[in-house]
Amino acid sequence: MVGYAFMGAAHSQGWRTAARVFDLPLRPAMAAICGRDPDAVRAAADKHGWAAAETDWRDLIARDDVQLVDVCTPGDSHAEIAIAALEAGKHVLCEKPLANSVAEAEAMADAARRARARGQRAMVGFNYRRTPAIAQARRMVADGRIGVLRHVRVTYLQDWIVDPEFPLVWRLRRELAGSGALGDLGAHIVDLAQYLAGERLVGVSALTETFVRDRPLPGAANSGGAAARGAVTVDDAALFTGRLASGALASFEASRFAAGRKNSLRIELNGDHGSLAFDLERLNELSFHDHTAPAADSGFRRILVTEPDHPYLEAWWPPGHGLGYDHTFVHQARDMVAAIAAGTDPEPSFEDGLQVQRVLAAVEDSAEKNCVYTPVPA
Amino acid sequence: MVGYAFMGAAHSQGWRTAARVFDLPLRPAMAAICGRDPDAVRAAADKHGWAAAETDWRDLIARDDVQLVDVCTPGDSHAEIAIAALEAGKHVLCEKPLANSVAEAEAMADAARRARARGQRAMVGFNYRRTPAIAQARRMVADGRIGVLRHVRVTYLQDWIVDPEFPLVWRLRRELAGSGALGDLGAHIVDLAQYLAGERLVGVSALTETFVRDRPLPGAANSGGAAARGAVTVDDAALFTGRLASGALASFEASRFAAGRKNSLRIELNGDHGSLAFDLERLNELSFHDHTAPAADSGFRRILVTEPDHPYLEAWWPPGHGLGYDHTFVHQARDMVAAIAAGTDPEPSFEDGLQVQRVLAAVEDSAEKNCVYTPVPA
Amino acid sequence: MVGYAFMGAAHSQGWRTAARVFDLPLRPAMAAICGRDPDAVRAAADKHGWAAAETDWRDLIARDDVQLVDVCTPGDSHAEIAIAALEAGKHVLCEKPLANSVAEAEAMADAARRARARGQRAMVGFNYRRTPAIAQARRMVADGRIGVLRHVRVTYLQDWIVDPEFPLVWRLRRELAGSGALGDLGAHIVDLAQYLAGERLVGVSALTETFVRDRPLPGAANSGGAAARGAVTVDDAALFTGRLASGALASFEASRFAAGRKNSLRIELNGDHGSLAFDLERLNELSFHDHTAPAADSGFRRILVTEPDHPYLEAWWPPGHGLGYDHTFVHQARDMVAAIAAGTDPEPSFEDGLQVQRVLAAVEDSAEKNCVYTPVPA
Amino acid sequence: MVGYAFMGAAHSQGWRTAARVFDLPLRPAMAAICGRDPDAVRAAADKHGWAAAETDWRDLIARDDVQLVDVCTPGDSHAEIAIAALEAGKHVLCEKPLANSVAEAEAMADAARRARARGQRAMVGFNYRRTPAIAQARRMVADGRIGVLRHVRVTYLQDWIVDPEFPLVWRLRRELAGSGALGDLGAHIVDLAQYLAGERLVGVSALTETFVRDRPLPGAANSGGAAARGAVTVDDAALFTGRLASGALASFEASRFAAGRKNSLRIELNGDHGSLAFDLERLNELSFHDHTAPAADSGFRRILVTEPDHPYLEAWWPPGHGLGYDHTFVHQARDMVAAIAAGTDPEPSFEDGLQVQRVLAAVEDSAEKNCVYTPVPA
Repeated sequence: MVGYAFMGAAHSQGWRTAARVFDLPLRPAMAAICGRDPDAVRAAADKHGWAAAETDWRDLIARDDVQLVDVCTPGDSHAEIAIAALEAGKHVLCEKPLANSVAEAEAMADAARRARARGQRAMVGFNYRRTPAIAQARRMVADGRIGVLRHVRVTYLQDWIVDPEFPLVWRLRRELAGSGALGDLGAHIVDLAQYLAGERLVGVSALTETFVRDRPLPGAANSGGAAARGAVTVDDAALFTGRLASGALASFEASRFAAGRKNSLRIELNGDHGSLAFDLERLNELSFHDHTAPAADSGFRRILVTEPDHPYLEAWWPPGHGLGYDHTFVHQARDMVAAIAAGTDPEPSFEDGLQVQRVLAAVEDSAEKNCVYTPVPA
Repeated sequence: MVGYAFMGAAHSQGWRTAARVFDLPLRPAMAAICGRDPDAVRAAADKHGWAAAETDWRDLIARDDVQLVDVCTPGDSHAEIAIAALEAGKHVLCEKPLANSVAEAEAMADAARRARARGQRAMVGFNYRRTPAIAQARRMVADGRIGVLRHVRVTYLQDWIVDPEFPLVWRLRRELAGSGALGDLGAHIVDLAQYLAGERLVGVSALTETFVRDRPLPGAANSGGAAARGAVTVDDAALFTGRLASGALASFEASRFAAGRKNSLRIELNGDHGSLAFDLERLNELSFHDHTAPAADSGFRRILVTEPDHPYLEAWWPPGHGLGYDHTFVHQARDMVAAIAAGTDPEPSFEDGLQVQRVLAAVEDSAEKNCVYTPVPA
Repeated sequence: MVGYAFMGAAHSQGWRTAARVFDLPLRPAMAAICGRDPDAVRAAADKHGWAAAETDWRDLIARDDVQLVDVCTPGDSHAEIAIAALEAGKHVLCEKPLANSVAEAEAMADAARRARARGQRAMVGFNYRRTPAIAQARRMVADGRIGVLRHVRVTYLQDWIVDPEFPLVWRLRRELAGSGALGDLGAHIVDLAQYLAGERLVGVSALTETFVRDRPLPGAANSGGAAARGAVTVDDAALFTGRLASGALASFEASRFAAGRKNSLRIELNGDHGSLAFDLERLNELSFHDHTAPAADSGFRRILVTEPDHPYLEAWWPPGHGLGYDHTFVHQARDMVAAIAAGTDPEPSFEDGLQVQRVLAAVEDSAEKNCVYTPVPA
Repeated sequence: MVGYAFMGAAHSQGWRTAARVFDLPLRPAMAAICGRDPDAVRAAADKHGWAAAETDWRDLIARDDVQLVDVCTPGDSHAEIAIAALEAGKHVLCEKPLANSVAEAEAMADAARRARARGQRAMVGFNYRRTPAIAQARRMVADGRIGVLRHVRVTYLQDWIVDPEFPLVWRLRRELAGSGALGDLGAHIVDLAQYLAGERLVGVSALTETFVRDRPLPGAANSGGAAARGAVTVDDAALFTGRLASGALASFEASRFAAGRKNSLRIELNGDHGSLAFDLERLNELSFHDHTAPAADSGFRRILVTEPDHPYLEAWWPPGHGLGYDHTFVHQARDMVAAIAAGTDPEPSFEDGLQVQRVLAAVEDSAEKNCVYTPVPA
């Protein structure tokens, strides 16, 4: 694994737990973790249970005891590391968004395609697909439970930079993060909307904004006197609408300026036979309205997605005993391992990650061009 | 009052009740109701408690015992009736949307301006402003409780035409209704967003859609054989984003195709000091997040807007005893009567109604022009 | 009508509105209102729309233009007024609880029985039965939707006397109110539980408490110096459990000391085929769980009880447009008038009110006798 | 660890994860797991990550590499194993309820007291205390945020035996389980109520019921012909009320017959300064009402207990990224290890577990004696 910050901890929890909970044909061994700071990476290896620590990702990739490389770095290094790992014959799991640009993502998808011919697997880490309620919703859509889709409506709201004095961390700098709320939050909801709908966006119209244009440099806050400041070079919020292939309408909002919304990813699909709604802050619940039932008897029902028949739940606790955020990484690890063992392609593929990147690029194009409707290349 | 259908009944309830609940300086007398069908209007007068019935609105306006004309007809006749009533020296309450076009709305606003010089009052019936929770939210925004506004997010979702065989009623015909979900639902949420924000939209980008292009003619359904069908000439759904004068972002969705959402008007405002959220299906509740409190102690609180200190509540029931939809019409009647008695201008004015009309026109323009960002004339 | 305070205003709203909304065979005329203070009752008559005012209820009962007497006084005068009205040949609607003692309630039920033979009607004002969601729940229970009943669970929580300095109003004095939270709130939930279950309590075990034993006398608070105080002679809270005739278990809690719960009446029924849940603070919603559906697909659904097929809703607004607290009084007036016109007995009868009184007496007995299980006389 | 079923898996997840997430002074090594079936326990060891497997708990206790014994067996063997482990010089974590009888619990508490003098630690596994929202609620009560306590109201509802054909598993047999819903669910809520209140129950009045008196023997269902049946010898539901030392009232309901309620543990505390409410099905949320704020501005606020300042959260994910059921076992392991390292006594102690047992015994006494109020021995 490359990277040991927030995503590194979450992925470690996934790799450590998957084979302890699920019956897997292969049991992942946590061979080595990689980071640039020798002391910190050594401490992280020890803490999270990795057998070895490396300070150069090229060394990690070169190890014989590494069959799968998990890329948890900021987006600017995804392409380089993931492509090298694939070239070196490793399976790759890469955090989302796949890359910081369409060009990088295309190169990655190409590399994955070539690697696939050699039996290697590549997956992009849209972990929210692995929330049982989301997987159950997908199952219900595929089963025709909501009928012809009319609307997809998604918001992903956070509030960690509402304070204008919050420092200029890497996620607020274009050269490292690629974009702001759009790539961080928007990538998730574009993937989820398309995954749940089972179809893709064909065009978008977008509005983006940076509310706070400069912020104190990290560490500068405590230094007394006027703190050194730097420019915020990414979006704080992105609003976009779009059309799906079937003609359904979609709306998206990603923001880091929604005070009180901590990690509020809400998604709703309306079809002519029913509707589904989900809120990540209540991740064990799925709301379903059956529009084919008599009106006097119907309404959104709150399904606790904790039954043995629900996706991933056969391995966990009795009904009503909910899971948390990090379980999505356990499921992701399970699915990746299962695909490798079965010799099948895990989803979402790098191709899927590339397509999300194309949507994000179309959003940025539209935002620059006065919101004009902008097709997403197929 | 002109018109005796859904809105006629709701307005009658308002006029009948206002002086029975509130202490008003003037007590409205329900002089006469008007409609084209003599038997039906006579029955409506009797049912709803109007002293007389008229079949021509010109006769209604000519009556000496009528000081105020309440226009509850479909939008295509608003301008003609309201202007004539104002010219005849009557106060006028006109249902929303003010008119079916900007030109009509301008003529109405002009007429109201002239009438105002004569001491007459004109108000447009955006009754949702009179929901106590909305009025309380406005009060809190005005008091600075949410600080600098960043986002307004509004959806108004219904589902009464999800079935493609639902007939082609007047609300689905442009020549009568002006537009579809946009004018019916969108007008409400544009007004509410601007009212709560205390500022206006400066531009919009929009996407509209008509999912079901033709429908059976009303009454045709039971006639055996292939039912005669007609074209739906209004939008089924309208999505738009925009910018407010302060730079805050706004998003809107109005749809009649959201299965399971019966009358789901949800509005949220995010500022740097707090957030407010409201859902019309739970109209006695207001959610407020105080972002100035310590994070460990804060979250959206559900204020039951039923305290004596809340707007309109001094006249109703003890805390926790909620109001319903029709109470908004009682409050509207109260506010109109109070303004007439006080010689002040009630809000929202015809000028406000005209401005909403301009936003709706900009939405339609943008939708026709590939979603391009379209300024709203000041 | 006798009494013109909170209940007087609510009942007036009911009588005034019922025939304006529903198609009724008889239209109630609001003949006269009665109260002891001549100026106040005159003002109330004028405000609420009663044609005449009386200061002695005996005079009211003697009026020829009065066919129905609506008793809205505190409980200590219910028996005397209601019995006299029945003897005088009037129909009677009496606020709940029917009386302050079982003996009074028995005399009232006797009087109602005799009057019934003369074609007079008597009803007790358990208005919450007229909440559409409650009436719909009753319909679903009667249709077997929840199967064999196992549990009824009801709480009715308020918080208006949490402050120990809140004054000693009439509701806190046994000689006027009969009991405290028990008679005021407990009577409602005993009636609702039995109504929804369709069966009666056969025994109870109870615990009651008066947390604040003395309070300032009303008006004394502002008099400077140590305020005169008096003893609170009713319960502040009552908890009781019981068995229904079928063997189902029931639990009840009535309290005026639940900070933040304004008018929180929650009721849940669990059967072997399903469950129903209701919360008065969200009175347009009914939660239903269908336990006969596959577990993976089921959960509590939130039925918005605003469809034309729902009880009372045919006369009101389109789906999703909710009603409020005072609509229950409109429905109560409608049902009373409809029963009089049809010559049938309205429900709940004085007999039903008496039985509730017997439950409350058993609760007080049990509370005095160390919580021992106390049968309710049949 | 002794036992490898549901609780065994949950506890394993706790031991495996605690030191990977929290910075602990000691890192637990998972030495050996014990169960009677040699193949099954071997497989469980392998699956859950235990180094060795034993088939006799006496052998486990005798191992030198075992310093702590975690007892996850049914209640009938708790006393024997835990006491032996303590005598053998091991620290002990014992699943709740501490024992099947007061006598056993007393012996265990005695053993713990003796062991404590030798520096050994004993803790009973009321894991729900380790839910961050519960720990935060306790912190707020201790800080005086709700003031003088008036009410504690707790229900713990499940529905897994609603079907009368559900088989007679060990949890339905008194000789193994001690009691039914009472010991399984009631023990949790008695502990939580007392923990949150910071005081103990002094007496209770109770009603219990077994709705389904006999059930098919396990495995018999598929054997064709009339299935062999056995008697259910525990309660299906237990309702009880009580008084806390301060005079506050408490109500409890534990049931396995609440259709649609999967794991619905709800607790609410009302004090004169505020109220707290929690629902285990939404375990990342805590509702708090501040009764000292102006009424027009107050209401229950939904605190997402995912902030770094909240208990246990410093080690987990960013705000809004919720935890699940099994995290409570991670926290339990952490707290046990931290106490051992610090040489302090972990809570809840065996003494606490004994006191809960006394409450449960008083409940059973009261239920047998016509609900009479029954003191809980101090």
